[in-house]
Amino acid sequence: ATTFRASEHQHIRYNPLQDEWVLVSAHRMKRPWQGQVEPPLLKTVARHDPHNPLCPGATRANGEVNPFYDGTFLFDNDFPALQPDAPNPGPSDHPLFQAEAARGVCKVMCFHPWSDVTLPLMSVPEIRAVVDAWASVTEELGARYPWVQIFENKGAMMGCSNPHPHCQVWASSFLPDIAQREERSQRAYQSQHGEPLLMEYGHQELLRKERLVLTSEHWLVLVPFWAVWPFQTLLLPRRHVQRLPELTPAERDGAPTGSEAGANWDHWQLHAHYYPPLLRSATVRKFMVGYEMLAQAQRDLTPEQAAERLRTLPEVHYRLGQK
Amino acid sequence: ATTFRASEHQHIRYNPLQDEWVLVSAHRMKRPWQGQVEPPLLKTVARHDPHNPLCPGATRANGEVNPFYDGTFLFDNDFPALQPDAPNPGPSDHPLFQAEAARGVCKVMCFHPWSDVTLPLMSVPEIRAVVDAWASVTEELGARYPWVQIFENKGAMMGCSNPHPHCQVWASSFLPDIAQREERSQRAYQSQHGEPLLMEYGHQELLRKERLVLTSEHWLVLVPFWAVWPFQTLLLPRRHVQRLPELTPAERDGAPTGSEAGANWDHWQLHAHYYPPLLRSATVRKFMVGYEMLAQAQRDLTPEQAAERLRTLPEVHYRLGQK
Ligand SMILES: O=P(O)(O)O[C@H]1O[C@H](CO)[C@@H](O)[C@H](O)[C@H]1O
Ligand SMILES: O=P(O)(O)O[C@H]1O[C@H](CO)[C@@H](O)[C@H](O)[C@H]1O
Repeated sequence: ATTFRASEHQHIRYNPLQDEWVLVSAHRMKRPWQGQVEPPLLKTVARHDPHNPLCPGATRANGEVNPFYDGTFLFDNDFPALQPDAPNPGPSDHPLFQAEAARGVCKVMCFHPWSDVTLPLMSVPEIRAVVDAWASVTEELGARYPWVQIFENKGAMMGCSNPHPHCQVWASSFLPDIAQREERSQRAYQSQHGEPLLMEYGHQELLRKERLVLTSEHWLVLVPFWAVWPFQTLLLPRRHVQRLPELTPAERDGAPTGSEAGANWDHWQLHAHYYPPLLRSATVRKFMVGYEMLAQAQRDLTPEQAAERLRTLPEVHYRLGQK
Repeated sequence: ATTFRASEHQHIRYNPLQDEWVLVSAHRMKRPWQGQVEPPLLKTVARHDPHNPLCPGATRANGEVNPFYDGTFLFDNDFPALQPDAPNPGPSDHPLFQAEAARGVCKVMCFHPWSDVTLPLMSVPEIRAVVDAWASVTEELGARYPWVQIFENKGAMMGCSNPHPHCQVWASSFLPDIAQREERSQRAYQSQHGEPLLMEYGHQELLRKERLVLTSEHWLVLVPFWAVWPFQTLLLPRRHVQRLPELTPAERDGAPTGSEAGANWDHWQLHAHYYPPLLRSATVRKFMVGYEMLAQAQRDLTPEQAAERLRTLPEVHYRLGQK
């Protein structure tokens, strides 16, 4: 019988955090790509565009004028998917037709006054200001809402409608679907094994090493064993941290997103998910389509191969290297 | 207090088939779109391209030459994500690192010898041949595998790498994730309410009418109450049908995908999901990105509004209308 090798033999893996399976078929990387090729990245974003509603001094869709901000800048999304007051749909008349109230707040946070930078091109103190702003918006909205989701849609390919460096913050009166799954899994793991799922997971990855990308005094970056996107990574603090505002000043000099509030949440561990869409290069992406949408996520290289490739990348940002 | 109106007031809806929630915020359709615009559809696909590996008489990546087929044509995918034999990963050494064996078969099915047609541009007898081919491949692979997933990735935007009209068939030794969810939900519903979930759902939609798109003697097309994609639809047979091969000749003259095999599956109802990515027009799509990937699916117009717009579309295919 042939010996199993993950990089050669298809198999399925379990995601214990979100209770999902992924099909891993690394041998499939050999197929040629004749499909859609993404346009190369726009190199020439102007540093300042007075017509870009995210720039300092620009006028937004609702007529408000942005201040000439010189650090981060937080404001209410002009087209929020969640608003603070919306009437309750009322009781459902049938188990197959269930609707519930949804209330919340959507904010936009600019990271920097310049449009031609991204987080990795900013200085550590500038990034630190972003982390501090994430912690304080989490604290502010977390006092009123059970879930504060911070996310950055990056690149036109991922539906980002504005090149200016920014993220969004959507706080909701309900625990969103994926948070609910992570809640169930983490709660069950803690009650069965007596420690937080992601603390034990981080320990194990430090021992096994093959999926680690970066480690620092306070943080781990790894390609999770159950990763779905080719170069998906997970950022974890080394110690048990439930929410962003708990991060120490030293930890914030290189940190992430996510929050929660309520009774006993000891089973939760702060973490950030990165889901880059690229597969082979900057212009060939992984499509999560037919099989993935109807049946199950599928990936073409193993998480271990992805981690290996990420580890060998140069430390210098590609845009600085070109200079 | 304001009266709740789904088309004005955000709310969350439950998907009882896949056990998921979606955030519906129809008021958000008002926002302007400044993001990525998709290239207009390529109008000039040649009817026959000898270098296209899906065309009759063409040579494929593995050196095999296609026959000069004049109906449907089924062959093994040259770069299959699932192969019939792959060794077992063996027992897991830790609950957070679980892998299992995956075996299967991936096939490609061309619908027609011409590259410049799509299913809706084919004649009823030609489409009927496709449905018959789906039923027989389901029968053949369903005898060996618990799940046979038939899917069509359509358009470059959805990762389709070849314009020739075709679908894929992936049969697997495991019940994929989404099938597992549908299995759990349908089984639970049947045991609680004594009838298949999707049979009762179809009945209810026939009574409620607002989400119906098309009805015929044998089929219903509707925008599900819990739809995630803007113009997502669900195709359901009117009578209880578990698998494609059970369809009668009359039902096949306008039918879909999906199969299953085993002990008692009375709770299952054959159905097809359609997930078109478009939001406002042929060039502006809905992105399922940051919030959707990290928190919960979100949609911008209600399923009822989508159904209304689909119902008012002309009966004539847009490409025939242009002539
Ligand atoms: O049609 P292809 O090229 O085999 O592959 C396409 O569909 C597959 C199944 O949905 C996806 O996993 C691929 O990412 C996509 O490019
Ligand atoms: O950034 P925008 O334009 O508000 O919106 C973008 O992110 C949202 C949250 O992930 C998605 O629902 C939209 O489809 C996407 O275009």
